[in-house]
Amino acid sequence: MNDQQLMKRALKLAKRALGRTSPNPVVGAVIVDKDGNIVGEGYHKKAGLPHAEREALKVAGEKARGGTMYVTLEPCCHYGRTPPCTDAIIAAGIKKVVVAVRDPNPKVSGKGIEILRNAGIEVVEGVLAEEAFYLNEKFFKFIKTGLPFISLKWAMTVDGKIATETYDSRWVSGEKSRSFVHRLRNEYDAVLVGAKTLIIDNPLLTCRIPQGRNPYRIVLSGSGNLPEGLNIFQLEKEKNILITASKKLPKHVSNGFGHIITTPLGENRINIKEAFLELSRLGIISILVEGGAVVHASLLQNRLADKAYIFIAPKIVGGKNAPGPIGDLKISLMKDALPLAIHKLRRFGEDVFIEGYFSGG
Amino acid sequence: MNDQQLMKRALKLAKRALGRTSPNPVVGAVIVDKDGNIVGEGYHKKAGLPHAEREALKVAGEKARGGTMYVTLEPCCHYGRTPPCTDAIIAAGIKKVVVAVRDPNPKVSGKGIEILRNAGIEVVEGVLAEEAFYLNEKFFKFIKTGLPFISLKWAMTVDGKIATETYDSRWVSGEKSRSFVHRLRNEYDAVLVGAKTLIIDNPLLTCRIPQGRNPYRIVLSGSGNLPEGLNIFQLEKEKNILITASKKLPKHVSNGFGHIITTPLGENRINIKEAFLELSRLGIISILVEGGAVVHASLLQNRLADKAYIFIAPKIVGGKNAPGPIGDLKISLMKDALPLAIHKLRRFGEDVFIEGYFSGG
Repeated sequence: MNDQQLMKRALKLAKRALGRTSPNPVVGAVIVDKDGNIVGEGYHKKAGLPHAEREALKVAGEKARGGTMYVTLEPCCHYGRTPPCTDAIIAAGIKKVVVAVRDPNPKVSGKGIEILRNAGIEVVEGVLAEEAFYLNEKFFKFIKTGLPFISLKWAMTVDGKIATETYDSRWVSGEKSRSFVHRLRNEYDAVLVGAKTLIIDNPLLTCRIPQGRNPYRIVLSGSGNLPEGLNIFQLEKEKNILITASKKLPKHVSNGFGHIITTPLGENRINIKEAFLELSRLGIISILVEGGAVVHASLLQNRLADKAYIFIAPKIVGGKNAPGPIGDLKISLMKDALPLAIHKLRRFGEDVFIEGYFSGG
Repeated sequence: MNDQQLMKRALKLAKRALGRTSPNPVVGAVIVDKDGNIVGEGYHKKAGLPHAEREALKVAGEKARGGTMYVTLEPCCHYGRTPPCTDAIIAAGIKKVVVAVRDPNPKVSGKGIEILRNAGIEVVEGVLAEEAFYLNEKFFKFIKTGLPFISLKWAMTVDGKIATETYDSRWVSGEKSRSFVHRLRNEYDAVLVGAKTLIIDNPLLTCRIPQGRNPYRIVLSGSGNLPEGLNIFQLEKEKNILITASKKLPKHVSNGFGHIITTPLGENRINIKEAFLELSRLGIISILVEGGAVVHASLLQNRLADKAYIFIAPKIVGGKNAPGPIGDLKISLMKDALPLAIHKLRRFGEDVFIEGYFSGG
């Protein structure tokens, strides 16, 4: 196997832990001996547990000596919850390290590589760098800004409606699209919805795929006046988070959430950025925003949105008053529209799927 | 060259006349001699001019004898404005005819082929049948129903808006998308807009590509109350058609249109189907509908729309009151949405483009 193939293998290992490692990145590592045989593999499973490099070295044991390590992210060189990986790599007698991307943290970026080189280890950089970057895009955003990576998700008809005039929305997109959303929920630390969507749709916001894990459920409600009996109140309370502007909440609301973040910004308005910084302190570094239109608009206006997942179903409902995916942005000229850089275009069954990035997110 | 390649050549020839032959189909023909050399080519240029088969036979002359003809549509066997092509093919001594698709007219479909076979000519059917069908989809609809083929076209943002809240729409889609629209205008007999779109956008509705020809410009206006000084009034009046419910039109309006079709259906309402039948009698068998939302909705509700061309620009304008592409359809449940069968998905520059068909159009 060549460098690309071995790095692909390391990326695949890293992917297994998507959504499990925050606030750490996902990382995979593969070790081959001097004859090119894979002698060790590993990935970082969870913050607090060993890094990928150490997992792979443990498997390889003495066979690592004289071998090459493929690792999806630059090895760390500082004491965190675990000792530096660079030490372990040097101690194991690894001869060459192939790195996909550097650590995004400007304070340490390149230092791990420097330490390895100073120890006489050959280091190759940039193998499948793009894949490795996108795999950890959430972590990269968080490290650079301290804010969680925010993705907006919506499903609309081919005439731009997320529901009919009577707010019926079951279902806009097809089965394959909806199953992909569950894969996203499995990868994001949290899903977020506005109070109106929570009340109208009364969603569970759970991840319903085999081996999936439920993300945190974040609700934005300025007033905090949520009705009793919502479906999310039946779920694990510790994973329910309320962001509100209100310091006086009804008892069933304060009881329904494991965390309540109060960041008022005037009458019933929320300081979202402040709330997001608070969430990142809880270890939530990625949030999938599932509507509604007003929440999406507010995140776009505050330049907090990084990415969009858009499902377009080949059906038409029409209607001047049927809701669209994005609320008011106070844009009156088409030339001032917010650009989205399309990264992927594909089909999910009959649906069209667009994945894109906002600039300055 | 094999059958597919020669039929592809015949289809390419046919395409040259797209938008020029109504109410006839576009047809291309290629003749090869017994050694496989192309000895004649031709296409149908315009209703009243010779059919493709005769054009190709004229070029081939004596070399047609013993050869094979590739033709995109079953040769005609009846006297129309020109004598039957089957006669000419038999007289020229053609030995084999390869046909892409049969004549869609159930009254003659298969008869041309039968006549050829009875004359001892070998006939092969179905080579590139799908391409040949789509090439003449407009004609096929017209022959089967007597109605023009109706396509809706809209450009919207990725949040489903065709303009901002202040109705600014220059431009939603990019240059490549807009240039494709001009290619469509070149292929459709007519473009149609509602009065509101005509007044707000004041479009020229011309075809601005090299060697392009302008389609008819059809305006739907129940009241017929259009302002003076519209751009289309500066263009060739014979190509301006008004469909109205009003029998009393302002002088500048009756002067501005070469044809006025009055099909009232109660107060200021138009009987669109009646008007479309009238248009087909004028030789207009295909119409590209370029908005607005109310016109699109009305055509969809009347089951008159066959196809949609949808340009999705990667930008967001938001706004509850920013207009979407389709007006009210009185659909309250998502499960009752009108399905669109997606036929093509591609990019035009940064834009996403969807081409699809409505069922029962």
